[in-house]
Amino acid sequence: MEKRIFNFNPGPAVQPLPVLKQIQKDFINYNNTGMSIIEISHRSKDFMAILESSKKRVKRLYNLDDSWKVIFVPGGASLQFAMVPMNFLTKDKKAGYINTGTWSTKAIEEAQIQGKNIKVTASSEDKNFSYIPKNFTIQKDLAYLHITTNNTIRGTQWQNLPETEIPLAADMCSDILSRPLDIEKFGIIYAGIQKNIGPSGTALVLIKDKMLDLVPEDLPTMLSYKTYVKKDSMHNTPSTFSIYCCELVLKWIEEEIGGLENMAALNKEKADYIYNTIDESNGFYKGTAQKEDRSFMNVTFRLLNEDLENKFINLALENGLGGLKGHRIAGGVRASIYNAMPLEGIKTLCKFMEDFKNQNS
Amino acid sequence: MEKRIFNFNPGPAVQPLPVLKQIQKDFINYNNTGMSIIEISHRSKDFMAILESSKKRVKRLYNLDDSWKVIFVPGGASLQFAMVPMNFLTKDKKAGYINTGTWSTKAIEEAQIQGKNIKVTASSEDKNFSYIPKNFTIQKDLAYLHITTNNTIRGTQWQNLPETEIPLAADMCSDILSRPLDIEKFGIIYAGIQKNIGPSGTALVLIKDKMLDLVPEDLPTMLSYKTYVKKDSMHNTPSTFSIYCCELVLKWIEEEIGGLENMAALNKEKADYIYNTIDESNGFYKGTAQKEDRSFMNVTFRLLNEDLENKFINLALENGLGGLKGHRIAGGVRASIYNAMPLEGIKTLCKFMEDFKNQNS
Repeated sequence: MEKRIFNFNPGPAVQPLPVLKQIQKDFINYNNTGMSIIEISHRSKDFMAILESSKKRVKRLYNLDDSWKVIFVPGGASLQFAMVPMNFLTKDKKAGYINTGTWSTKAIEEAQIQGKNIKVTASSEDKNFSYIPKNFTIQKDLAYLHITTNNTIRGTQWQNLPETEIPLAADMCSDILSRPLDIEKFGIIYAGIQKNIGPSGTALVLIKDKMLDLVPEDLPTMLSYKTYVKKDSMHNTPSTFSIYCCELVLKWIEEEIGGLENMAALNKEKADYIYNTIDESNGFYKGTAQKEDRSFMNVTFRLLNEDLENKFINLALENGLGGLKGHRIAGGVRASIYNAMPLEGIKTLCKFMEDFKNQNS
Repeated sequence: MEKRIFNFNPGPAVQPLPVLKQIQKDFINYNNTGMSIIEISHRSKDFMAILESSKKRVKRLYNLDDSWKVIFVPGGASLQFAMVPMNFLTKDKKAGYINTGTWSTKAIEEAQIQGKNIKVTASSEDKNFSYIPKNFTIQKDLAYLHITTNNTIRGTQWQNLPETEIPLAADMCSDILSRPLDIEKFGIIYAGIQKNIGPSGTALVLIKDKMLDLVPEDLPTMLSYKTYVKKDSMHNTPSTFSIYCCELVLKWIEEEIGGLENMAALNKEKADYIYNTIDESNGFYKGTAQKEDRSFMNVTFRLLNEDLENKFINLALENGLGGLKGHRIAGGVRASIYNAMPLEGIKTLCKFMEDFKNQNS
């Protein structure tokens, strides 16, 4: 058995061990082709089957009808920050953005760089992005309302979507495929795949047909969503390895976990375990996010001071619990507990938290 | 021993077997981290060491001084077609493009989509792109002259670079790191890595400092070369797996092959072997590229008719020689013989060609 740690990194992040084992096993000779998965043609029947299957799995998992297109775009969410306004905000079109932290802010900036007509609809910057805005007024006639469904750095997550008829454009990097969605509220969903569904460098994008009507014809080819839809993500050579990994992770979610209801229940159980440990610590651990907005993917908390936090993080690593250091902007401790983090890892962390508290309070 | 075929695919393409074996061996537990290479943080010391080493290897292999920056950009060459004019052709700047086939044409189109001021300096379209233009006049005051150093589809390659002081912007997808370069002639070199240096989905880009002075400040962040230089290719999470594979392939070129002089000699030996087989076939096989412009990476040839070509391709596959079908635009047969194709594969192909000729003429 290979040495493995419990990996609480925020992304790239833990992947399902059976998936990793399968990638390893098949790596030199994929499906008896006599070639590695990284050597086969993107136009081969083997790869086309992978691409087709992965799209179908996403559609089944989210119950998407044929008005939805599933595409893979290079570059992660950061390129999507630019592509969303570039594709949907031509001429008189405008959009609203809800600012819930670093990544929302970056999305806003990329629209502004292009001189697009956007407004910040609501923000939680006043309290260090520790909550999800509520009871805000949404402007009329927006092409989309942009939200970041889960905020990796601050540990908050939209538990109830905004009440609006305007299509949501959602950065779902850190909670894609972690729970079922009221899909009809969305116009576009995008996610860098490096947290819940594979290796870094590629974005999974789900687009509703009607959003494509907004896309101008004169965009650079690789920056137009229409290209990816029309060419089935194959205008150029896509990241075949990334899509292959996605396919295996999606298969794991469907066949091993049993779909998004089960995935969500497991994720809630995992998160509750840690939040309970925090809340029952008599203030030794302090959660940073407002309780009703707590993320099921990234659990953020502080200890008494930075020295104690560093001691916690280092001792945790010595005990096989890695990646717990909070983002440099937020400080503290962060346990990223994406889909592939097993319950055993959570229990081991909580046991460590109890022991550390007893030895240091 | 795993089943392996000789893989003549044009890209994604054959990779060095020792590299594939190492990826497989270390896949679940990279460098004793207890994590897969696809799970470790891009900001971890393990990944930073990979990134740093890969950049240094590229610099050593091409003898690049510190006026050169080595970056990794998502999306392959197709996104570079758009980024090159977007970054270097602001306001009054103009560029020349030499059209040597499909990929050059696409590069030209992406500049035109953006309304940039470009001219086609020379073209070999008049003879089906079967040669590299010579004795053309280059416009003055160009920001760059764009060339495609190797033409994967038509099997031609620049054996002598254009005589000019204008910095060359080179799409080097299919011959990057296959031979030494007169590097001072270039301003920017880009290549999707899926042929000579790894898996698909990422571009390796080499930029000369002075070219960065042309880049405007108001580009979307992920579309500005300055971002990649300033943030060391880590503004967002890069494709860590791709860069890791690059590092291993670069190491193989440096340490196993012994650098680009050796690599070029081996590639020439390989190509000559097949071209000799073609030229000595009494017309049974006909090379499609003009002799002095023949590519050392993609050997393209025709047989008497399409039926015979299909028979050749299918029988070759049965004999463990895969990926020999020519591009649909060009038809015929194409043997892509990138760096990692071993001489043994070439000899096996040439023996097959001899036998096939004897049985069918």
